[in-house]
Amino acid sequence: MPNPTAAMLVIGDEILSGRTRDANMHHLAGALSRHGIDLCEVRIVPDDHDAIAAALNALRDKWAHVFTSGGIGPTHDDITADAVAAAFGVAIDVRDDARALLEQHYERSGGELNAARLRMARIPEGACLIDNPISAAPGFSIGNVHVMAGVPAIFEAMLASVLPGLTGGTPLYSQSLRIERGEGEIATPLSGLAREFPGLSMGSYPFQRDGVLGAQIVIRGEDRAAVDAAILRLAAMFPEDVRR
Amino acid sequence: MPNPTAAMLVIGDEILSGRTRDANMHHLAGALSRHGIDLCEVRIVPDDHDAIAAALNALRDKWAHVFTSGGIGPTHDDITADAVAAAFGVAIDVRDDARALLEQHYERSGGELNAARLRMARIPEGACLIDNPISAAPGFSIGNVHVMAGVPAIFEAMLASVLPGLTGGTPLYSQSLRIERGEGEIATPLSGLAREFPGLSMGSYPFQRDGVLGAQIVIRGEDRAAVDAAILRLAAMFPEDVRR
Repeated sequence: MPNPTAAMLVIGDEILSGRTRDANMHHLAGALSRHGIDLCEVRIVPDDHDAIAAALNALRDKWAHVFTSGGIGPTHDDITADAVAAAFGVAIDVRDDARALLEQHYERSGGELNAARLRMARIPEGACLIDNPISAAPGFSIGNVHVMAGVPAIFEAMLASVLPGLTGGTPLYSQSLRIERGEGEIATPLSGLAREFPGLSMGSYPFQRDGVLGAQIVIRGEDRAAVDAAILRLAAMFPEDVRR
Repeated sequence: MPNPTAAMLVIGDEILSGRTRDANMHHLAGALSRHGIDLCEVRIVPDDHDAIAAALNALRDKWAHVFTSGGIGPTHDDITADAVAAAFGVAIDVRDDARALLEQHYERSGGELNAARLRMARIPEGACLIDNPISAAPGFSIGNVHVMAGVPAIFEAMLASVLPGLTGGTPLYSQSLRIERGEGEIATPLSGLAREFPGLSMGSYPFQRDGVLGAQIVIRGEDRAAVDAAILRLAAMFPEDVRR
């Protein structure tokens, strides 16, 4: 059975303007790989209601799971929750359980649960809360969509509580081989090998460093024995040029 | 007149599997901002012919420029050029000028221009070549789409030769202010300020470091005087908590 599929939607003007370098995509990609879920598509959109809703609807129709990052804080540009509600065509309002989490948090920390912060308790109808152990304001899951914060430490904590609840497939097993030979001389033997092992994916990542030219070849697949057999075959083709 | 718009399409299984962290998106975002082109959407897709062609057609219809990254090397998983040709419905074959560039390069470097490397001279009909000062294999522009390599040094060199030829708008001017106060207490004054300066974009990026809680507020816009006025107004609202 093929692995479940997933997509990610990153929301934030600051990523598209080049001000901030997104870190959550790379974290999610690794975590999903280890869990046996295939990340198939990523989109990054600005803090714009219609852009968020349209991208979300395209992705949730197409893939088994969608993870979003960003836009659920207390400020005027935090519009993700409302856009998600609009995409699902459901109502959104402050919900008692989410408000209670915030009340407890600000009581403990001595802050005030003002109107701006209370926006973080707006949860679309029918959603389940995702725990935020760092700053209390919850994420939420609705349908196949998991809405999480953009701050990396909070994104990672929320993902850690969502992921165990999702059925994973077979984590891909991979082996890599560093071959110090121009990629163009590896290409033909490698494509022969790819035809011979149709169940494996083989990637070639060229490098040129300190005057040394070569490529890192990565072979991935669910079948460990096949991955090992393929990497040994590849190594035997370049006996002079292999560095592990 | 609003700035020209752009999108990016990142192509690569290695990004989606978490093996490699993409660097080109952040570089492109910064370069476009400085050139006065607004990056409006990014998509990341795997090394899959149909996925590349479909995403490319969606993006090139919607935005003024599209920049792609990855999948133009010599190996069997480098299928971007063929997918771009299919998206545009044009033929693709080895082109003499691209082949000549490779011949010169391998003659100088002592490598062999074999069948795999010759694939890098496959150029869709009607495209213009983009210079590759590092490893010769060219990128290309077709319609409003600029097809570039995934290796960061080559991507950056190709972008440097494409960007001066594109009409830019007004680069956004930005100011930022570090306010050491919970984001939830900044939110209401900030959203009042955003209503007062509708031509500016205001973002709030919370942080929590070494026990200090606060937010970095970024105000951006084409009108420098308005940005400066808004940032001074904001600073005056938090006289005790501002760190420049």
